[in-house]
Amino acid sequence: MEVEAKFRLKEGVIEKLEKLAKFVEEKEEHDLYFSHPCRDFAKTDEALRLRIEKRVKMTYKGPKVDCETKTREEVNVLVDSFENAFKLLELLGFKKFRWVKKVRKIFALENAMICLDHVEGLGDFIEIEVQEFSDKEKIFEIAEMLGYSREESIRSSYLELILEKEKN
Amino acid sequence: MEVEAKFRLKEGVIEKLEKLAKFVEEKEEHDLYFSHPCRDFAKTDEALRLRIEKRVKMTYKGPKVDCETKTREEVNVLVDSFENAFKLLELLGFKKFRWVKKVRKIFALENAMICLDHVEGLGDFIEIEVQEFSDKEKIFEIAEMLGYSREESIRSSYLELILEKEKN
Repeated sequence: MEVEAKFRLKEGVIEKLEKLAKFVEEKEEHDLYFSHPCRDFAKTDEALRLRIEKRVKMTYKGPKVDCETKTREEVNVLVDSFENAFKLLELLGFKKFRWVKKVRKIFALENAMICLDHVEGLGDFIEIEVQEFSDKEKIFEIAEMLGYSREESIRSSYLELILEKEKN
Repeated sequence: MEVEAKFRLKEGVIEKLEKLAKFVEEKEEHDLYFSHPCRDFAKTDEALRLRIEKRVKMTYKGPKVDCETKTREEVNVLVDSFENAFKLLELLGFKKFRWVKKVRKIFALENAMICLDHVEGLGDFIEIEVQEFSDKEKIFEIAEMLGYSREESIRSSYLELILEKEKN
């Protein structure tokens, strides 16, 4: 399970974040999302992507299961080659759908991970993630410390936000 | 491209093989083949499998392209976990189809690889593989040295042979 909530960056948050949490690392993540050969991922609320960062990861994301967060099943497999994984998926009928590219600054606070994301074409966001669904309230406690109410949580993925933006 | 031909083991071949070629290694290969969510691999002559040996590999095989050998496109991706790769494929709609398990003794002869395979439920086979399709004749030269005519080449994969056997 990936248990996380997302908020649009607003004034004063970075300062609070830097005071509260410990900076861990900054990295670029280039994610290529695929469409399924015979399933409409937009309808099933699933996703398949290849992520390029230091290593390459193939990730399946299941439908969101909580109404306040973007909690969902996530299965990750490290692969040894983006090119071959891409070719294999294409030969199986998956089609290149959209790139989502971001610069991610990761911070740690107790058992939570806080990401300050600059997403190409979308802007800046905060994502707060915990390991267990039972720690969901921890997410909103941290969000409050950063200046967010729980109503400000955005359930859409970056991919969905990009598609929404394209529509308008 | 995977360029190879397969022959059923017959008397005297092992002795010739051991004299001609250099023994490289022996390993167990446990291959789990999948069916596609919306494509009939039996009709398209494709395959998707996870192979467990020392490492775990996800492999796509395309349709055979030569009438004398089992030459076909092959795309390999090393993955870090059989369990997660299996789960990811299942969540995408691929279904566990058949296991093919074998003990493989690998020999080298010039630029060719010769495998002596003991396949669970099927028996013993010789596979001769080269890297380039332009070396196809090399396969039949080696086969002849081992005592095989080119008409004895079996184009079916182990999976196909297992399915044929189940039918009868």
